[in-house]
Amino acid sequence: MNELELIEYITPRLRQNPDTLIGPGDDCAVVKVGGVLQLLAADQVVSGIHYTPDTPPSKIAKKLLKRNLSDIAAMGGEPFCALLTLAGNISDGQWFMEFFDALQGAAERYGVSISGGDVSSICPECPPDSMVASLSIIGSVEEHKLCLRRNAKPGQLIMTTGCFGNSFSSQHHLDFEPRLREGLFLAGEFTRCMMDVSDGLVLDLQRIARASGVGVELNTATIPLRDGASTADALSDGEDYELVFTVNEELVPELYSCWSFEASLNCIGKITSAHSGLVFDQNGVNLSEKSKTGFKHLSE
Amino acid sequence: MNELELIEYITPRLRQNPDTLIGPGDDCAVVKVGGVLQLLAADQVVSGIHYTPDTPPSKIAKKLLKRNLSDIAAMGGEPFCALLTLAGNISDGQWFMEFFDALQGAAERYGVSISGGDVSSICPECPPDSMVASLSIIGSVEEHKLCLRRNAKPGQLIMTTGCFGNSFSSQHHLDFEPRLREGLFLAGEFTRCMMDVSDGLVLDLQRIARASGVGVELNTATIPLRDGASTADALSDGEDYELVFTVNEELVPELYSCWSFEASLNCIGKITSAHSGLVFDQNGVNLSEKSKTGFKHLSE
Repeated sequence: MNELELIEYITPRLRQNPDTLIGPGDDCAVVKVGGVLQLLAADQVVSGIHYTPDTPPSKIAKKLLKRNLSDIAAMGGEPFCALLTLAGNISDGQWFMEFFDALQGAAERYGVSISGGDVSSICPECPPDSMVASLSIIGSVEEHKLCLRRNAKPGQLIMTTGCFGNSFSSQHHLDFEPRLREGLFLAGEFTRCMMDVSDGLVLDLQRIARASGVGVELNTATIPLRDGASTADALSDGEDYELVFTVNEELVPELYSCWSFEASLNCIGKITSAHSGLVFDQNGVNLSEKSKTGFKHLSE
Repeated sequence: MNELELIEYITPRLRQNPDTLIGPGDDCAVVKVGGVLQLLAADQVVSGIHYTPDTPPSKIAKKLLKRNLSDIAAMGGEPFCALLTLAGNISDGQWFMEFFDALQGAAERYGVSISGGDVSSICPECPPDSMVASLSIIGSVEEHKLCLRRNAKPGQLIMTTGCFGNSFSSQHHLDFEPRLREGLFLAGEFTRCMMDVSDGLVLDLQRIARASGVGVELNTATIPLRDGASTADALSDGEDYELVFTVNEELVPELYSCWSFEASLNCIGKITSAHSGLVFDQNGVNLSEKSKTGFKHLSE
């Protein structure tokens, strides 16, 4: 059993309260609290999986926060606070102080308060540098901005921010900037269907296709490549932390003319009514078949 | 550096947003969302630290949820939803399916929806049965019920639910019942100062003493002991997941007469203006000195 199979086992079994508007299966859950649409997500960084032993603790800490912020961005929301748990070899005080100082610095930069959590030793038989850090992020979204994977419509264009592929070798997986401002700008005005690309473009687009009951036709020649990446890398590497979203074609000229962000804006395909739940390329090749497991991180 | 020293390093550095009413340092953080007082907490279970290898996955899963519920109970609140992250050797599908089925069953029992999270492999050099599971709980509390560690007043009596000590050998640390109903009953009506005892009675009472700027005088002869526990065990073992709270003396007769729960109710001491931040016994012995580190879990 791999991660995806386990998640497929779990997800349909998780029953939601009536005030949970969106349960597991999108970038964030959405719950209604006192009239506010609250966004909830949790993600982790694990030694040997999400970073190599030579990675500075400050970069690991920032990655942990930023990959959660990327989920908030994908829903069209803004972050508010976070909870942290950490299991590691606490005796190495210097390492952990650097980790926390960097996490707190990044949290301040993004207006997030770290409001609670827990610290524990990791099991004594684990290697001395092993660590699991988990962060839960809490944010909010205005109702008219809420973006969901299920909202793609046939005929819409598929657009992206930034570049894809080669995230590990290029260190992008540590140094990326979560697309919070871009997400806020796009949400509601230009799109109601957005997600962040963390597990690979094809796998993540397939999630949109399944959730919306539509097909995806990619024009692979138009996918912007990160330095050193092939198109194949861009389709499956993952950890891009870029936004992919759908736009009605008639809005695209206005979108380009209003776009003031550094990240490039690209149209990489369209939503179709054919091939529901699948991702094809411009030559009719079913990419979903080739990329069943998506991003497999460092050591899997 | 141990866990407590690391937490002492971190906590004062975590700056809070204006809508965070209570930040780190109580059982839950309290944030105001759309007029609702929301409770936030996160806790984890780690292999070799919080459970032994022979523990069934269902008990580990329930412990993870219940220790978080105990934090909600301690604030006088009710749980709403949770986020889960898990790092483990996912290839053992059967183990994880049992874990999730038990977690979901317990969540339903307590009215909690598990609304999101993440699953990852753990580092490949970790032993095959190593696991770190982290759960963030989100609940709410009525304003007049909110119980805080900082609210103890000199002259109040210190009361507890249930028994103390010997939590590991007795399996209480797996089989306990979080005191949600008791917490709701007590909060506002009988107390505004409550916490759950997870790190040992003396260490946790010292937290109340410090937060409130008061002293604690325990009558150690009156502490109810779990089967097989000595008074010394009851003072320091931890993982009791019982409530300790302060009550104005004149309310105590009514409290006893209204108490309809199975858990025993006991008065174990009083809040004093002397010895601020410290815990003494009835003979003037400073217990805080003897129990500086509190509960050290399985392997520390």
